[in-house]
Amino acid sequence: MSYLPASADNAFLLFDVLKADEQLQRLPAHAGTDQALMQQVLDEAGKWVGDVVAPLSRSGDEAGAQFEAGRVTTPPGFASAYQDFWQAGWPALACAQEDGGQGLPWVLEGVLYEWLSAANHGWTMAPGLLHGAYECLKHHGSDALKAAYLSKIASGEWLATMCLTEAHAGSDLGLARTQAVLAGDSSLGERFTISGGKIFISGGEHDLTDNIVHLVLARLPGAPAGPKGLSLFLVPKVLPDGERNAVVCERIEEKMGLHGSPTCVMRFDAATGWRIGQPGAGLNAMFVMMNAARLHVALQGMGLLDAAWQKAHAYALERRQMRAPGTVPASRGAGDAADLIIEHPTIARTLDVQRAWVDGGRVLAYQTGVYLDVARHAESAKEREQAQQWCSLMTPVLKAAWTQQAFEGASACLQVFGGHGYIREWGIEQIVRDSRVAMIYEGTNEIQAIDLLVRKVLPDGGQAMGQWLLFLRKSLDAGRPLDAEVLRGLAQLRYFTTVLAQACKEDDTLAWRVADDYLRCVAVLLLGWAWARIAATEGTDGERWQGPLMQVQQRILPEMDWRMSLMKSQWAQASVVHGNQLYAAAN
Amino acid sequence: MSYLPASADNAFLLFDVLKADEQLQRLPAHAGTDQALMQQVLDEAGKWVGDVVAPLSRSGDEAGAQFEAGRVTTPPGFASAYQDFWQAGWPALACAQEDGGQGLPWVLEGVLYEWLSAANHGWTMAPGLLHGAYECLKHHGSDALKAAYLSKIASGEWLATMCLTEAHAGSDLGLARTQAVLAGDSSLGERFTISGGKIFISGGEHDLTDNIVHLVLARLPGAPAGPKGLSLFLVPKVLPDGERNAVVCERIEEKMGLHGSPTCVMRFDAATGWRIGQPGAGLNAMFVMMNAARLHVALQGMGLLDAAWQKAHAYALERRQMRAPGTVPASRGAGDAADLIIEHPTIARTLDVQRAWVDGGRVLAYQTGVYLDVARHAESAKEREQAQQWCSLMTPVLKAAWTQQAFEGASACLQVFGGHGYIREWGIEQIVRDSRVAMIYEGTNEIQAIDLLVRKVLPDGGQAMGQWLLFLRKSLDAGRPLDAEVLRGLAQLRYFTTVLAQACKEDDTLAWRVADDYLRCVAVLLLGWAWARIAATEGTDGERWQGPLMQVQQRILPEMDWRMSLMKSQWAQASVVHGNQLYAAAN
Repeated sequence: MSYLPASADNAFLLFDVLKADEQLQRLPAHAGTDQALMQQVLDEAGKWVGDVVAPLSRSGDEAGAQFEAGRVTTPPGFASAYQDFWQAGWPALACAQEDGGQGLPWVLEGVLYEWLSAANHGWTMAPGLLHGAYECLKHHGSDALKAAYLSKIASGEWLATMCLTEAHAGSDLGLARTQAVLAGDSSLGERFTISGGKIFISGGEHDLTDNIVHLVLARLPGAPAGPKGLSLFLVPKVLPDGERNAVVCERIEEKMGLHGSPTCVMRFDAATGWRIGQPGAGLNAMFVMMNAARLHVALQGMGLLDAAWQKAHAYALERRQMRAPGTVPASRGAGDAADLIIEHPTIARTLDVQRAWVDGGRVLAYQTGVYLDVARHAESAKEREQAQQWCSLMTPVLKAAWTQQAFEGASACLQVFGGHGYIREWGIEQIVRDSRVAMIYEGTNEIQAIDLLVRKVLPDGGQAMGQWLLFLRKSLDAGRPLDAEVLRGLAQLRYFTTVLAQACKEDDTLAWRVADDYLRCVAVLLLGWAWARIAATEGTDGERWQGPLMQVQQRILPEMDWRMSLMKSQWAQASVVHGNQLYAAAN
Repeated sequence: MSYLPASADNAFLLFDVLKADEQLQRLPAHAGTDQALMQQVLDEAGKWVGDVVAPLSRSGDEAGAQFEAGRVTTPPGFASAYQDFWQAGWPALACAQEDGGQGLPWVLEGVLYEWLSAANHGWTMAPGLLHGAYECLKHHGSDALKAAYLSKIASGEWLATMCLTEAHAGSDLGLARTQAVLAGDSSLGERFTISGGKIFISGGEHDLTDNIVHLVLARLPGAPAGPKGLSLFLVPKVLPDGERNAVVCERIEEKMGLHGSPTCVMRFDAATGWRIGQPGAGLNAMFVMMNAARLHVALQGMGLLDAAWQKAHAYALERRQMRAPGTVPASRGAGDAADLIIEHPTIARTLDVQRAWVDGGRVLAYQTGVYLDVARHAESAKEREQAQQWCSLMTPVLKAAWTQQAFEGASACLQVFGGHGYIREWGIEQIVRDSRVAMIYEGTNEIQAIDLLVRKVLPDGGQAMGQWLLFLRKSLDAGRPLDAEVLRGLAQLRYFTTVLAQACKEDDTLAWRVADDYLRCVAVLLLGWAWARIAATEGTDGERWQGPLMQVQQRILPEMDWRMSLMKSQWAQASVVHGNQLYAAAN
């Protein structure tokens, strides 16, 4: 059984819970984007994903991308599915109309990629990198470069890569050594030659498109050491004159999963390229698309977890083992010597916990997707700024917590199958293997935690975070049980954050010691908030929503207290070291 | 880098912390087993494992076991390593001398298998099944069967399998349908024909030994439905007269990992077999070896986690990325633009948490191994009974919690490598894939939780568990900080267990709803206890032991309170349903 988008669920969260259509229609850019239009796009997308991409997932894993003498062949069916995809206009869904796109809201692209990743993570890696390249080139490229490349990238006729990592420079891109040297002029502006090696380049070489546009971080002569010495260059596989550029794929990696996606080791041998943006501003140019790209990865997590849930749920509804405890379940027929495993409490809980993460995560990610558009298109600067702040704080939380849950939840879903989960037949072990990478790429989850706490929360003493937590109160109603718990959590975290910010001034490694727990704490609180929104929406009385809701209340949200106590134990240590009273204050 | 047993660590835990040699020498059967003898065995075993088996792990994963027309070929090198292994007498280490064994304590076999699994999980599956078969045949087989098969199994000259699972009968073996029919007499006693299909048979067919002895659960004509209708049969691949028996390997499974071990689909076509034990007592005969077999799996978890730690620790000591927060670390050289990643708090914590689980787990598992011998050999019936109780309560906890930690901890170690962890090169992703199966086989971890709470703790209202928790207090000293925390935990869990037992009488599914959290609660408390023992031992002042100890205190043991609060939320539900006062009592 391959993945089938349950688009009614996504639509319910988008329209009934979030009223995303109404939020978007307030923006002049999306005034005409009503629910009917969005629904139509979703219906078509869901059908296409289920029909074309999902059936290629297992065969893609088994065949894998193949490398021979510098050429990469993607698994059977991948190339024709990709031709279908870009010719139908899917990559350009949310691109600007002036670039040949459809100018639809970002959130539709988000849902599309959630489904694509769920259906076939390996295949989706290829177009997944287009969107960052598009934003990057659009905002930082020269007019000449844009004229030559932007519409081809927007449409997806040419695919793109991000060439950042080098063997010794992973999380620490500032160590990158690839060199760029000015080599003369050209019709596209100053021409550079790029030399060096890059690794972990998804789609660095393949047979899906005629050309591949590499965005490469490199260092100009005399550039300072560290991240501020990095500039960004556009290096096409095929040059404008039709010649092959000096970009070579040396080999592809053998990986734990994601076999359908070629992960390439690339060599640039004085390859021709053009600079995007200012010298030394290479990382800045990439940060343009950082929130959107990380949100994409968070949605991969949600998609993969949903796919794992679909498999485990279907299995639990047909597999019978042992009698369930308690009263005779209605599902036990006269001749049944054993009950459906979904009647066993531990199995039912496993399934509902994953649904809690998927659906709560969707509410948060879709709202963030809406705010990405608000941050771009709102008329009032204040509104744009608030939306930007939401995206900035929410994105690392969604990326880290939901990719972790994707892997751990997929493993929990594998467990539902017992021994049958460990073999390839049911496809669940592939999801565990595939999902693991999302905890690493686009900034490891540990980097996300540092990004949240050290870069975003602490610099202003927790003010912005506090404002944001106050903002989240607005949509809650203290008369509802879950809302009351979330309100308590919001107040608690707001106070905790202030005290933590103070404590971090006294202890210069405390922030790094608590960052992971802090992020997790925010994540479970946000999940509670999302479910408070779901529970307050008409139509959520049934088991479909009440089962996961119970797990949020009984199991997930209570983790917040535990995480705070773990952080306080670090603090206690600080107070021993520094002899101050902060620990007492935090208690 | 392949796995290398750090045998000094194991010896320290065995002799300095547990004084296992002194405990064992009190038993007449092991009066001569002093530390020098045990140390000599460990030294040889460690060397052999590191030299012969460990280097075959990655190549074994890549080549995989191969199937063709009913024949199975193990990866290159596996067969000759196995010949080495049994001819050197390793399988018979702890077998009785009258069966050709060396009669050494079980705990040495335990350490040997911990190392073997760490070094090469796939290879180790083959001999791993010998020990259960040996115990089963020794205690339940007829004299004629024992004369024909016991010494061959003890020595490992012939390998053995456990044929339990059928496609529709996994956790619920009572659903098994394989048939056994009396077919006449023979020199080995009543002869039966066995017909049916079995799946997930590790080593069901291979090229390691001339014969394979299958122990098969099957149903005699007219046997009652369910587990009490199952009998056990010995079905050799090659019959005593040299003829091939009608046992066929139909295919081998494609799995997530453990590629070196063939997981076979077996068909018995009126194959010849002989009954072991009484009709209908098949599961009983298997239970003989249950604790030892599950303890083996727990040790696999510890071994695999140790192997993952070794890789990640070595990598963290050579990989430099970004500046570490806080004061300049001593490891930063003048020319270093970045610090060793072990200087980053989140990496150091990841590593120490895994060490905490490995070394604490070893203390618990080795003590349990000693008690397996006490339960067999002690002169006093009371001592035997107490030891048996320890094994009975400890085994499901060790099996479930340590196999879970093996998988999650291996994944955490993979994360230390960043993107390099996701590719095959470093071998860490293989450990994640291999270790996953241990959460499933020998009874899923959910079954272990039910075994602990429903079968062992609740039937006597928590009395035996309470006694055991009291017993654990003996070796603690309230004057030491960790000991005081563990003492508090022991008292708390003892009280909690009594109240829970009462509550379960009022709510017939409560035990099943809290079983996983209860087991986890016991596990972290036991880990605290083990570390209290380690911390009280001379020679643990250094960072090697103090780093993990801090994680036990700050991070692992506090999980107990969280788990209890999760259980109480189930209770609260019960109290709403049943209107009783138990929730208040538990608070």
